[in-house]
Amino acid sequence: MQTVQVELAERSYPIHIGAGLLSDGDFLRDQIRSSQLLIVTNATVAPLYLDRVNNAFSDRQVSVFILPDGEQEKSLPRFGEIIDQLVAERFHRDATAVALGGGVVGDLTGFAAASYQRGIDFAQLPTTLLAQVDSSVGGKTAVNHPAAKNMIGAFHQPSVVIADIDTLATLADRELHAGLAEVIKYGLIMDAEFFHWLEDNVGALLERDPAALQYAIAVSCRDKAAVVAADERERGQRALLNLGHTFGHAIEALSGYGKILHGEAVAIGMALAAETSVATGRLPAEQLAPIRQLIESAGLPLQLPPLPPGDIVERMGLDKKVQQGRLRLVLLDAIGAAQLVDDVSAEQILEVVESYGGG
Amino acid sequence: MQTVQVELAERSYPIHIGAGLLSDGDFLRDQIRSSQLLIVTNATVAPLYLDRVNNAFSDRQVSVFILPDGEQEKSLPRFGEIIDQLVAERFHRDATAVALGGGVVGDLTGFAAASYQRGIDFAQLPTTLLAQVDSSVGGKTAVNHPAAKNMIGAFHQPSVVIADIDTLATLADRELHAGLAEVIKYGLIMDAEFFHWLEDNVGALLERDPAALQYAIAVSCRDKAAVVAADERERGQRALLNLGHTFGHAIEALSGYGKILHGEAVAIGMALAAETSVATGRLPAEQLAPIRQLIESAGLPLQLPPLPPGDIVERMGLDKKVQQGRLRLVLLDAIGAAQLVDDVSAEQILEVVESYGGG
Repeated sequence: MQTVQVELAERSYPIHIGAGLLSDGDFLRDQIRSSQLLIVTNATVAPLYLDRVNNAFSDRQVSVFILPDGEQEKSLPRFGEIIDQLVAERFHRDATAVALGGGVVGDLTGFAAASYQRGIDFAQLPTTLLAQVDSSVGGKTAVNHPAAKNMIGAFHQPSVVIADIDTLATLADRELHAGLAEVIKYGLIMDAEFFHWLEDNVGALLERDPAALQYAIAVSCRDKAAVVAADERERGQRALLNLGHTFGHAIEALSGYGKILHGEAVAIGMALAAETSVATGRLPAEQLAPIRQLIESAGLPLQLPPLPPGDIVERMGLDKKVQQGRLRLVLLDAIGAAQLVDDVSAEQILEVVESYGGG
Repeated sequence: MQTVQVELAERSYPIHIGAGLLSDGDFLRDQIRSSQLLIVTNATVAPLYLDRVNNAFSDRQVSVFILPDGEQEKSLPRFGEIIDQLVAERFHRDATAVALGGGVVGDLTGFAAASYQRGIDFAQLPTTLLAQVDSSVGGKTAVNHPAAKNMIGAFHQPSVVIADIDTLATLADRELHAGLAEVIKYGLIMDAEFFHWLEDNVGALLERDPAALQYAIAVSCRDKAAVVAADERERGQRALLNLGHTFGHAIEALSGYGKILHGEAVAIGMALAAETSVATGRLPAEQLAPIRQLIESAGLPLQLPPLPPGDIVERMGLDKKVQQGRLRLVLLDAIGAAQLVDDVSAEQILEVVESYGGG
């Protein structure tokens, strides 16, 4: 087991990464101390892991909320149902909400934990690669609005993150690949050494080699933790974590949530951001090929789904990263170095999107 | 104008208290700088003050959301409607939500501001005494759950509070009295000198003497700000601000929200807490009479509405101040000194409630 600490003064917390963690009742009981636990999970994860987590807490008051699978569950109505259950079962302020599942479960549970009685404790037990390297770390919680992703939420740090890499053994290939998109992102925005390690080890990751997975997850969490510690509420540097996401959110929204996976949309978005970085004279042109190569090697798409390019650009205007009416975009200066820019015109973006086969 | 500063490091903010502030366009524009403003108000306040605030920002993108009047509007569905409007009008992260009204408007607007895109700026323009001395200061935001008050919310500090005492001239007597309940509370829990000032000046306050009002509001805000600065998220000392509220919330909920005003319920709750403080040997018996006397002089009720005492005690168990299954209660050691206790039995509380004419 490796542990990465997220340093946020009185809200600091550990991320434990290793094999067999969800099967270790003593460990779980030691990490989550509340007398009342609400475990939120979904229909896919529950048959696999709910019993072992539930059994670990047979001495506590445990309530379970099982969601259907899918991004559409990350909604304000579902949020309301979780609150209803917490109220009905008289959960107190010192209860803990436990998210057992992927990013949808984590984001929804986190927002419920942030809001119930203005904030109760929250433990993340991520069971997808995407959640282990990204959504369960950093305290961003949210539900989607019908018109845009993650529009309603809170910054609410978990008290602990427990990433059991055994859960990745049962993950669908497509989900594994989607998680690698965010892993590659850390290499691109801040960690050239890790990018090159990924070039050498993407095969081992696709074969689910436990040592490779544990290393990639730990480095990803360490990189993200450093960014979050420096800028918890995304006033500056943290925005770099959104590489590919402004494009990606537009692609997801226009495709209909759930049609394309978040990581797949981010992969296309990172390729578009890299292309835009070259087109605007930031990224040396010769660095584009290895970026596209790594994304492709990780089993991820580079090609846009058939969407009108103009719609994509317009949609990007609704994204949270728009400030004072100007579109802000994360672009690359090099592999391992990103910056937030606001001087790219809609026309330039449209040109890049059109060249990527939108429409 | 007097200004009280709430000291919360990077979230510090001023509370400006004075006459004519809402009519001073330059002042408002200087205090609220965003290019996009959502003004939330209600049907009672809008005809009185909306135009002057709106006019002050004719150079900005201003959207208005007008609620019907009443506590029932502090709901998750209304919260969703405000978010819908922010999304529909493409409000950005650097927008400001402006609450123009009483506690209901402030709490609802604040929770929407806390949650929209995980947090936008928030300005409080309280127009009731209750909001000026209590709900607009300290960053507690929330909506009610059908089963309990303030169950869904966030700590989200305003960027500025502007309390125009001219707005109190049009306030219904009953609302003025309800606000005085929270004013008296500060005297009771932490400020004996202010308690005695109130004993001498309650008449001037009831006559809406501007100098007396401004002084009472400023002292109340100063006292509350000191508590909030020491304990923003209510881990300890801040709970003292809940004197009378555990009783009060139960009374409000059982009466049906809106039947009895929050301040009225708190007034009865403070009398019950004082009585419980005497019954458990904390408060010297001779201090009970002046407390009851001041509450009554402020036009507030001392008598419980006809509710079964057992229901009140049971209902108190759902209150947020329950920790690990034990009922925590704010009691008085003296006028001006309170503490949080958890050793009072349900039977002792029942006895006090019964003696107060419940049932």
